[in-house]
Amino acid sequence: MLARMPSHLPATDLPPFSADERDALHRLLAARRDMRHFVPGAVLPEGALQRLLQAAHQAPSVGLMQPWRLLRIQAGERRRAIAALVDEERQATARALGERSDEFLRLKVEGVRECAELLVAVLAPDDGTVFGRRTMPRDMALCSVACAIQNLWLAARADNLGMGWVSMFDPERLGRLLELPAGAQAVALLCIGPVPAFYDSPMLELEGWRFERPLEELVFTDRWGD
Amino acid sequence: MLARMPSHLPATDLPPFSADERDALHRLLAARRDMRHFVPGAVLPEGALQRLLQAAHQAPSVGLMQPWRLLRIQAGERRRAIAALVDEERQATARALGERSDEFLRLKVEGVRECAELLVAVLAPDDGTVFGRRTMPRDMALCSVACAIQNLWLAARADNLGMGWVSMFDPERLGRLLELPAGAQAVALLCIGPVPAFYDSPMLELEGWRFERPLEELVFTDRWGD
Repeated sequence: MLARMPSHLPATDLPPFSADERDALHRLLAARRDMRHFVPGAVLPEGALQRLLQAAHQAPSVGLMQPWRLLRIQAGERRRAIAALVDEERQATARALGERSDEFLRLKVEGVRECAELLVAVLAPDDGTVFGRRTMPRDMALCSVACAIQNLWLAARADNLGMGWVSMFDPERLGRLLELPAGAQAVALLCIGPVPAFYDSPMLELEGWRFERPLEELVFTDRWGD
Repeated sequence: MLARMPSHLPATDLPPFSADERDALHRLLAARRDMRHFVPGAVLPEGALQRLLQAAHQAPSVGLMQPWRLLRIQAGERRRAIAALVDEERQATARALGERSDEFLRLKVEGVRECAELLVAVLAPDDGTVFGRRTMPRDMALCSVACAIQNLWLAARADNLGMGWVSMFDPERLGRLLELPAGAQAVALLCIGPVPAFYDSPMLELEGWRFERPLEELVFTDRWGD
């Protein structure tokens, strides 16, 4: 006999998802890419930006705190200033990489200047939520923001739009540039827009930079390494 | 004229996603819930666990580092020990909540004992990846793990299975219990399985604990608060 839902909790009346719908999700998960090549000068189709923002906003969040904030960058000057920060961090990364520096500098690592829309995903200042985050307050808020970004990413792919998550920036300097309040932190530059095509595999694999490990190596039973 | 992809980067030959497929994704994002009520004694349908794990594994990760590890808990004794840790943290949370303590203790906040499958999502020890995380090394690895969890969550919902992300635990004590290596951190207990029904809205809203803010309050243009 099945457990019932408590009577004070209304259940959804949605029909179950079909095998076709399930398979469409898995095709989408497999087709999502971190894109760095965009069609310059393109714009998003009517309604797409709203769909993407709504997708992000439907993410789970610890204690329902919704710690994500999304800044849409519209001023050209502001976008150029952000791109300059990314350029600086790209050079700093190259220096930190040592012997792979030249190889790294040949990669295209972001599309901040060319993408149709640039959003900045920001972790909001802590609102004091205790539920679900007494022991890991910052981590759980950050994870909620990441879930929102992943939702947005999938929604972009379903709209046949590319997205790239650019994390090559100094968060303090970007925070000052964007006049973020104390306690807020930018965690992603989201480059979004039409792309000439989607990479067939992760671009870092196509470029021979690094290769993914198979699932089996990362799943254990009961204890680490088993 | 459209920008072309560089000729050394193979493009996918997948057809574009249709409006129907796009709409299915948005229905799924809207229907996903943080579930705490499961059908006791149930098991996952054939093939479902592999689909869920594969979905997690298709997440983006900074520099392709794939910092997620998934521990499947099969030993009953181990599950009971984890549940006891969660119970302790639930009491600690109640004390920290002060005047809302009694109200909190009336909520069902997890389904660790009843769910069909219990997975622990773990942030792996830092592998030294520099690409994309020179300035925010731990944050970016953690975000990658969160993206994997969100993928898994959506895959569960598409399989008409419930999932709950339980973060009420002391990560150090859980790490010792699971014998995690130095530098690894458990970030989520994932309760997965058949549910009697899906909540119509987030359970914390149905219970009157907290209500979500609308999207418009969390999206700005060019600067915080605009």
